[in-house]
Amino acid sequence: MESTEHAAARTPGRCIKLTVAYDGTNYQGWQRQPTGPTIQAALEAAINSITQEEVHISGSGRTDAGVHAWGQVASFRTRSKIPADAFRKALNATLPHDIVVRHACDVPTTFRPINDAISKRYRYVLQPGRINDPFSLRHAWFVKRVLDVEAMQVAAKALIGEHDFAAFQATGSPRQSTVRTMLDATVAVHDADERMKIFIEVEATGFLYNMVRIIAGTLVDIGQGKRTADSMADIIASCDRVQAGMTAPAHGLYLLEVHYPKFD
Amino acid sequence: MESTEHAAARTPGRCIKLTVAYDGTNYQGWQRQPTGPTIQAALEAAINSITQEEVHISGSGRTDAGVHAWGQVASFRTRSKIPADAFRKALNATLPHDIVVRHACDVPTTFRPINDAISKRYRYVLQPGRINDPFSLRHAWFVKRVLDVEAMQVAAKALIGEHDFAAFQATGSPRQSTVRTMLDATVAVHDADERMKIFIEVEATGFLYNMVRIIAGTLVDIGQGKRTADSMADIIASCDRVQAGMTAPAHGLYLLEVHYPKFD
Repeated sequence: MESTEHAAARTPGRCIKLTVAYDGTNYQGWQRQPTGPTIQAALEAAINSITQEEVHISGSGRTDAGVHAWGQVASFRTRSKIPADAFRKALNATLPHDIVVRHACDVPTTFRPINDAISKRYRYVLQPGRINDPFSLRHAWFVKRVLDVEAMQVAAKALIGEHDFAAFQATGSPRQSTVRTMLDATVAVHDADERMKIFIEVEATGFLYNMVRIIAGTLVDIGQGKRTADSMADIIASCDRVQAGMTAPAHGLYLLEVHYPKFD
Repeated sequence: MESTEHAAARTPGRCIKLTVAYDGTNYQGWQRQPTGPTIQAALEAAINSITQEEVHISGSGRTDAGVHAWGQVASFRTRSKIPADAFRKALNATLPHDIVVRHACDVPTTFRPINDAISKRYRYVLQPGRINDPFSLRHAWFVKRVLDVEAMQVAAKALIGEHDFAAFQATGSPRQSTVRTMLDATVAVHDADERMKIFIEVEATGFLYNMVRIIAGTLVDIGQGKRTADSMADIIASCDRVQAGMTAPAHGLYLLEVHYPKFD
């Protein structure tokens, strides 16, 4: 593809930063695809219908099909003079209801959502129990087990710090470096609505492909007693994808926040 | 219609009581309709496919199109010898994922879910705020306002006790008596997931048609300051539907629990 970044850089005018929440259920992920609806395409179509410009939007990163976001960050260049918050309202009036712009503001035209991000925070939502919850079908991974949350909490701590996370990268996705710094990794019980959920939250300077979902799959193994809490350190040290657990399904994953040094 | 109750009563064998949760979004309500899928029809189809009998199921009451349930109660007669909990599992393996049988047990064949109920508890879920939440589109009423929860709490208290609730009955739905006893009425803030919701919960010996949704619409008016908290007593006293607020949309309403004297 002709780089979206370059096309955007050539457009004169202002740069607007958006914070976007979406239910990813009905989308083929963030990035524009010829095969079906995507978040990027929906946002570009909404902006274009407001400004009559052919706008390109760049995100802080792609989310896969079915993955949700509470705080995806994206930006675009425009010649429009509409104030940022009025833009937000116009977008929300135009977008499908499962995509919501939570915040919009002007940022320097040098802003790049991918390159400028200093960390990202993801949440993976598990719903353990005997009986499925019809209200969480699209929004949590139902695990038909009792999970040992304490063991999962101990294991999560081993993730914190600078590590080579090669064991938690989808096979066939080579990166120059698989070293990342995990800033936070927590497992917490969330008693929403009497139906217990478990939130796995991880914050890192960057993530490898499928990293959060493989971490979630591994922690679920530990919660079920298939692996010990201690095994997490060994899995990291192995740098071997085969040692880690399954890739948890997309519909439990949320991109919660993207942090930038200058604007937060 | 040929009464389902009578048909069921003629079937010999045991009586099984089910506690059923469902996401009502994709259904035309509880009661079998020629125009589209219903919860009753889905349950009957699932039971029939397991037992090869033509089973009729009766519920504790109808829920309207789009209304949800966490604890709808229903029962059916069967000659099947499958133990109740195995029946539950077989049903959950057969039913669409948005209908879940939470509990199944044998009850006396004299059990009637409507007639034997001593009270029902409903929850109405509001999501107040500036910005819609893409994850609650089907499960809460988005109210684009700040709501005064304390005023709503004061107003809700006026509902408790034996009252003529004629003001809270959909027009054109005459009943012999519109007097009901409200056992509990609460308004509570629920901070699930950082996204604030307000739960209105009401428990009564019986409800008039659309009663909970009209109570919710009236409480939202009070929360917005369009009416005072004191006005609730006057609205009840008026026995006039026009004095109460709008009928809140179906998708915020949940049948939470149905209480019976003998089995709980």
